Amino acid sequence: MDAVKVIEIKKSVFADNDEDAAKLRKELKQKGVYLLNLMSSPGSGKTTTLIRLINLLKDRIRIAVMEADIDSDVDAVKIREATGIPSIQLHTGGMCHLDAEMTRQGLDNVPLDGVDLVILENVGNLVCPAEFDTGAVRNAMILSVPEGHDKPLKYPLMFSICDMVVINKMDVAPYFDFDLEKCREYVRLRNPRAKVLPICAKTGEGVEALADWLLGEVRAWKE
Amino acid sequence: MDAVKVIEIKKSVFADNDEDAAKLRKELKQKGVYLLNLMSSPGSGKTTTLIRLINLLKDRIRIAVMEADIDSDVDAVKIREATGIPSIQLHTGGMCHLDAEMTRQGLDNVPLDGVDLVILENVGNLVCPAEFDTGAVRNAMILSVPEGHDKPLKYPLMFSICDMVVINKMDVAPYFDFDLEKCREYVRLRNPRAKVLPICAKTGEGVEALADWLLGEVRAWKE
Repeated sequence: MDAVKVIEIKKSVFADNDEDAAKLRKELKQKGVYLLNLMSSPGSGKTTTLIRLINLLKDRIRIAVMEADIDSDVDAVKIREATGIPSIQLHTGGMCHLDAEMTRQGLDNVPLDGVDLVILENVGNLVCPAEFDTGAVRNAMILSVPEGHDKPLKYPLMFSICDMVVINKMDVAPYFDFDLEKCREYVRLRNPRAKVLPICAKTGEGVEALADWLLGEVRAWKE
Repeated sequence: MDAVKVIEIKKSVFADNDEDAAKLRKELKQKGVYLLNLMSSPGSGKTTTLIRLINLLKDRIRIAVMEADIDSDVDAVKIREATGIPSIQLHTGGMCHLDAEMTRQGLDNVPLDGVDLVILENVGNLVCPAEFDTGAVRNAMILSVPEGHDKPLKYPLMFSICDMVVINKMDVAPYFDFDLEKCREYVRLRNPRAKVLPICAKTGEGVEALADWLLGEVRAWKE
């Protein structure tokens, strides 16, 4: 198998990211491409969740993945090996987030004509990525059980901008003081519209519900 | 008990943070105050580790804590209730890190004449805090088992600037694919001088070794 394509992302020169993001979203709408921005802390299980999710969806819609990382390419390689779908690596060169122009630099390397869904795995960070609209149709995030149910209180912006909050590693809940109901309540405080979906990416439990949500999203976007 | 003091941190105006940090470190040396900058991902167990650590050290040295957070004060309250030591909350107002001037704004609210050790609990983030020298004598970080042993590969700068890498939540190691030896090897790649110390803040296992290290550090700084 060929080496994974690695794109070195350059710093944006655009002054108005919100405007640029809206423009990118409009272009994606015209092309019928749904962009999902997936965020989380380091180690919450983004890549494992994506592999499960893609394997459930790849025969129904055409998917590509952009993996943003400070400088490794382990995730893009993992995704491609485990799912066979096109996966590219975006190197942020130390930058802690992606904005719309940086996302566009990645999308320029994805064959958008043959793709329904592009998933952007953002840099592992609950702070900075929340501040920049990437141009995605929706923001989703993963919070894992070991991180604790109080995170919506401590990282308010992240939770307020996400439409889907996936709670991963539910299999280890018995070993942690994680209160799912409290977590739901704290998420609601930040964003009453957000869905909260408990899963276990390791066993696959709950990932089908996530796939159903995303499939519905992609189909609605293409109408 | 009185409410915890909350300091709203303002954005720095200094152009040269490295110079400012060196100046702050020199002032702390003159006052005989050791500043430790503690970093990690969200939910790695910084606060629980600090409570254990402080309770082991508080009869031997005088300690104060500054808890940096985007906008909650749960950690400062927890620390004070569990240890009885002075603890203040720094609100970064959405900012993802602290630099030297922001740290100084916090220190202005700590009675430095009666303190040997100030511990700064930085914002939960493996990216941005690594880029700014806070003026601390040493940087320490906590990586928790559920985050995975590959994190030194993915967040190279953070691991390269830390002198102490604490591996927390060792009690749940049997439920995760965490390879401690690989983790040690990856940390060494980033920083051959860094110490790697496995602990369990929940049970207290290993925290004494961390206390011994820190006590030695503080005493050497005051000589």
